[in-house]
Amino acid sequence: MDKVFKVDSHTHILPEKWPDLRQRYGYGGFVRLEHYRPGGARMMLDNKFFREVQDNSWDPKRRIEECDRHHVDVQVLCTVPIMFSYWAKPKHTHDLSQILNDHIAQVVHDYPDRFIGLGTLPMQAPKLAVKELERCMDIGMRGIQIGSHINDWNLNSPKLFPVYQAAEAVGAAILVHPWEMMGQEQMSRYWLPWLVGMPAETTRAICSMIFGGVFEKFPNLRVAFAHGGGSLPATIGRIEHGFKVRPDLCAVDNPINPRQYLNKFYVDSLVFDRHNLKFLIDLMGIDQIVMGSDYPFPLGESEPGTLVESLDISPQDKQKLLGGNTMEWLGIKTKTFVK
Amino acid sequence: MDKVFKVDSHTHILPEKWPDLRQRYGYGGFVRLEHYRPGGARMMLDNKFFREVQDNSWDPKRRIEECDRHHVDVQVLCTVPIMFSYWAKPKHTHDLSQILNDHIAQVVHDYPDRFIGLGTLPMQAPKLAVKELERCMDIGMRGIQIGSHINDWNLNSPKLFPVYQAAEAVGAAILVHPWEMMGQEQMSRYWLPWLVGMPAETTRAICSMIFGGVFEKFPNLRVAFAHGGGSLPATIGRIEHGFKVRPDLCAVDNPINPRQYLNKFYVDSLVFDRHNLKFLIDLMGIDQIVMGSDYPFPLGESEPGTLVESLDISPQDKQKLLGGNTMEWLGIKTKTFVK
Repeated sequence: MDKVFKVDSHTHILPEKWPDLRQRYGYGGFVRLEHYRPGGARMMLDNKFFREVQDNSWDPKRRIEECDRHHVDVQVLCTVPIMFSYWAKPKHTHDLSQILNDHIAQVVHDYPDRFIGLGTLPMQAPKLAVKELERCMDIGMRGIQIGSHINDWNLNSPKLFPVYQAAEAVGAAILVHPWEMMGQEQMSRYWLPWLVGMPAETTRAICSMIFGGVFEKFPNLRVAFAHGGGSLPATIGRIEHGFKVRPDLCAVDNPINPRQYLNKFYVDSLVFDRHNLKFLIDLMGIDQIVMGSDYPFPLGESEPGTLVESLDISPQDKQKLLGGNTMEWLGIKTKTFVK
Repeated sequence: MDKVFKVDSHTHILPEKWPDLRQRYGYGGFVRLEHYRPGGARMMLDNKFFREVQDNSWDPKRRIEECDRHHVDVQVLCTVPIMFSYWAKPKHTHDLSQILNDHIAQVVHDYPDRFIGLGTLPMQAPKLAVKELERCMDIGMRGIQIGSHINDWNLNSPKLFPVYQAAEAVGAAILVHPWEMMGQEQMSRYWLPWLVGMPAETTRAICSMIFGGVFEKFPNLRVAFAHGGGSLPATIGRIEHGFKVRPDLCAVDNPINPRQYLNKFYVDSLVFDRHNLKFLIDLMGIDQIVMGSDYPFPLGESEPGTLVESLDISPQDKQKLLGGNTMEWLGIKTKTFVK
């Protein structure tokens, strides 16, 4: 392949419309989309404004136009984390997951060379989650997106092991995305839940999976964490030191130094700063970073891949970051995918 | 000065004993020290075990022995953050602050060439805090230690401006230390409040002061943040990008790019990893990093300064990190201090 093959590992999509969930399930707390002008809508949490979105959040054609403009060949699609709805009754989260997954599967089916799908699962009910995970793979998805925690469970919870086991068995990739940010009520000003809370959530998830021995128990799991691993790159020394000096607290479920897992999972490239990205490559290795933009949201890379392209590295390494590693993470052979 | 002059900017100390605070104030929630064996005690939160400590937590002679062993000339002393007690009635926090500050002042008085003191204040009552801050400076302290947030206030709260104004007026240095970590109830396993929550707290504090315009309003304030600035070094790109794309959320109190403040405050060197420390120096500048060990706690650098000493930098730069910058932060001329 001579041309650079660009895959955006981290993009969000919504259906243009979905049923009234309050009416469907009999209680509130869900998101609805208020199409109040052509090409623009408001995500509303019951009657509270959550986020303004444009048609590139739901219209595959608009997405493809923007991809073409940015030379992005393929987008990996997943829902917006607020849609996870793990707090709802399991059967309702299951139902909503099916609605969202069927939509993504349809988009992938319509444009199979431009989109790859990740499903969402009722993680609070692991049996249902496994069932929906298997269905996701049956309808053409390549993996799942899960939250940085599932209600009161962190990602080390043995309750989640059946989901990890099933993901390993069916070869589903996992994207871990921060949500329900710690401290968000205490630091609502200055967008701090997104700027400070999200990176902490991601690190909470990474540490929970490492210290919980998840990568030991499920060695073939292919997991990527959003936003360059959150605060991990700055705090890996502290985390490793904590493990060394207080094994009675840190090594209770896994005796292995956390640093040894840095080449066992993926993180996306969304760090917005060349020095940070270089540091990340040095820390994790060139094979562990997947280009991801958080498209179509403003706290993302507006022209996906620009930061990676600005690096002074070999064309081969650049290709890994821009697409090759994402295909490895997803378990897809690039040669069979590219026509 | 030919010999390296080593100042540890970040160490904690407690009195060997203090009054029964439950009895003194009429309610619980305070720490007491249970001396249950020679040279060892338990910090108890009412009847709940909080932390095991050794006599180097309270005995200046033991501290000096260990300093001598590690070639540390001077320790900057402050209390243990759990002692802040901002949640208590202001007059009681004020009283407790006086007890703790008088103790530190006495230790400094007894060993003026080995210790420098930072006070603690009833920050939830800014008028009392200013009063105690001025008293601290009168009894020979060089500044104060404050928490990463004060109950419901973040460090941008205008309620705290009188304290910043007074600190500027009397030339008091400020150490911001993480405490009451966000998310601690949700991630109690694997020491995550310390490994994930503390770095997030520190970044919350830095962002609050930057976005709140504190460094603009009080340009002569000299502030240091613990633990290498927490997660800031990994997330500065994200924070800056957030500021650029959502000024309506981030720039509401200060229109200046957060990156421009990186050379306006100090962070300590406690990152446990040479690559991280180098990154920190590149990010913030050689003049902004102060050697700090979190002595005498295990999540600290067991031989203070070792990481700095391992760097391949000039002797002049090493001296800055090992002591010069701390003296700048404290507003002390090294020449007048060293006998």
